[in-house]
Amino acid sequence: MVSEFRLKRRVQFYETDAAGIVHFSTYFRYMEEAEHALWREAGISIAARNSEIGWPRVQVSFEYSRPLRFEDEFEIHIRIVEIGEKRIRYSCALTCGGTGIATGTMTIACVAKRPNEPMKSIPIPPEIASRFGVAAEGGQAS
Amino acid sequence: MVSEFRLKRRVQFYETDAAGIVHFSTYFRYMEEAEHALWREAGISIAARNSEIGWPRVQVSFEYSRPLRFEDEFEIHIRIVEIGEKRIRYSCALTCGGTGIATGTMTIACVAKRPNEPMKSIPIPPEIASRFGVAAEGGQAS
Amino acid sequence: MVSEFRLKRRVQFYETDAAGIVHFSTYFRYMEEAEHALWREAGISIAARNSEIGWPRVQVSFEYSRPLRFEDEFEIHIRIVEIGEKRIRYSCALTCGGTGIATGTMTIACVAKRPNEPMKSIPIPPEIASRFGVAAEGGQAS
Amino acid sequence: MVSEFRLKRRVQFYETDAAGIVHFSTYFRYMEEAEHALWREAGISIAARNSEIGWPRVQVSFEYSRPLRFEDEFEIHIRIVEIGEKRIRYSCALTCGGTGIATGTMTIACVAKRPNEPMKSIPIPPEIASRFGVAAEGGQAS
Repeated sequence: MVSEFRLKRRVQFYETDAAGIVHFSTYFRYMEEAEHALWREAGISIAARNSEIGWPRVQVSFEYSRPLRFEDEFEIHIRIVEIGEKRIRYSCALTCGGTGIATGTMTIACVAKRPNEPMKSIPIPPEIASRFGVAAEGGQAS
Repeated sequence: MVSEFRLKRRVQFYETDAAGIVHFSTYFRYMEEAEHALWREAGISIAARNSEIGWPRVQVSFEYSRPLRFEDEFEIHIRIVEIGEKRIRYSCALTCGGTGIATGTMTIACVAKRPNEPMKSIPIPPEIASRFGVAAEGGQAS
Repeated sequence: MVSEFRLKRRVQFYETDAAGIVHFSTYFRYMEEAEHALWREAGISIAARNSEIGWPRVQVSFEYSRPLRFEDEFEIHIRIVEIGEKRIRYSCALTCGGTGIATGTMTIACVAKRPNEPMKSIPIPPEIASRFGVAAEGGQAS
Repeated sequence: MVSEFRLKRRVQFYETDAAGIVHFSTYFRYMEEAEHALWREAGISIAARNSEIGWPRVQVSFEYSRPLRFEDEFEIHIRIVEIGEKRIRYSCALTCGGTGIATGTMTIACVAKRPNEPMKSIPIPPEIASRFGVAAEGGQAS
């Protein structure tokens, strides 16, 4: 059962902007990158080909404390904070050399994908839900 | 005095992902695009060359209701909801043909930019603050 | 019959990098943006939902003369230079206030999209090919 | 002396588009990512803070053979094919499980960066040029 994941990453040049720092929208890509690594750690792909379910994001946020710059090496620590009937909620902390950079949240919903129909929220299948657990309190991402 | 802005936009192909919809991180770029248009409407650039102040983001969020797809035409409505001594807070609503797509928030801070020093939060210069006002209640982005 | 298109555009902040200029990969997004506008001008979408054909890129290039910066207003001029049995070839020129910025090329192929099978190159359907023509020589994008 | 570099990478979701494959503009980011890793392998950063020289791209291209999809693991093999007085030229090959995906080229120029002046092409400093060599013929990226 998987409840958290730590991903090490280096800032790429195309992730920076003219202010000389990582563009704020990029942090959401970092958070997603760690989320998908967590799913692989749990033995599944969040977007397997031909899968009939999908996982759209319903809420996301970030608070920024310090900037990241080109070639900075940092860590993304993502934790599952809630597993509901139809949704999973994460929190996320970015650190660089032990210094806090930013903290984020993300809620995803389980939906049925049917061609040419709106996405419909459905309960998380047990074979998926059983692979994940809620992370213990007290982690640095809380 | 400028307090809100409505930007019309069309979804570009490179903004979509393998789920067939606009990637959730792209909405933050849409929000910023509307913010910068609002600043131009107020007669200034948020990132003029050689400017000694900058406007890093300190908090951002989005809640998603419905997806956007390639070539959808939509509107980004950004509103100033608070002007503090050192910060400006926005809310933002995306709609497509009158249907709500997503709502976002963003807080930016005024900082002094000095080479090789950390960014330092400073009061918003009066010649900038005087150009902006808080949007009236009751708009659709509230 | 459509053979070229001129798209006006402004540089967005998220398109710049830490060198203070538009990231070189962004130019390919500009070229594609103009291409898709050209297709709409011809009355069709290059990626209509449920379409059984697709248009992957098989070759692209850019040569860069001068940089673009945040909020620069520029023009993308895309021209069809060849329509083959299975491929369309474009050239593209970016200018800013009359000054040449960059020139690009792009070749796209018509393919049949079948679930779980490799993409297969097919002849361009006549109802599509008939909408497009080769641009006259002598344009600034040549 | 460094002349080539092989970087292993996994496709991220935000790199895909609504055609279900990696967006063609993303390959240029992959090529740059490998280039910057090659420079680090040579002991230097291509964009060190406060550096008075920069390395804008003057020409880039890609030819695409097969698509990449979400979570594909692939290799970027970049090679230096020419070191001129003022320019460096690379070639690049992407492979996935031994299968050719795409091949690219990139030429970068050494420029002096002076505030508020146009970039000016200059000879590559010897302390930089001496770290790099031209890769031997016969590699798969040729």
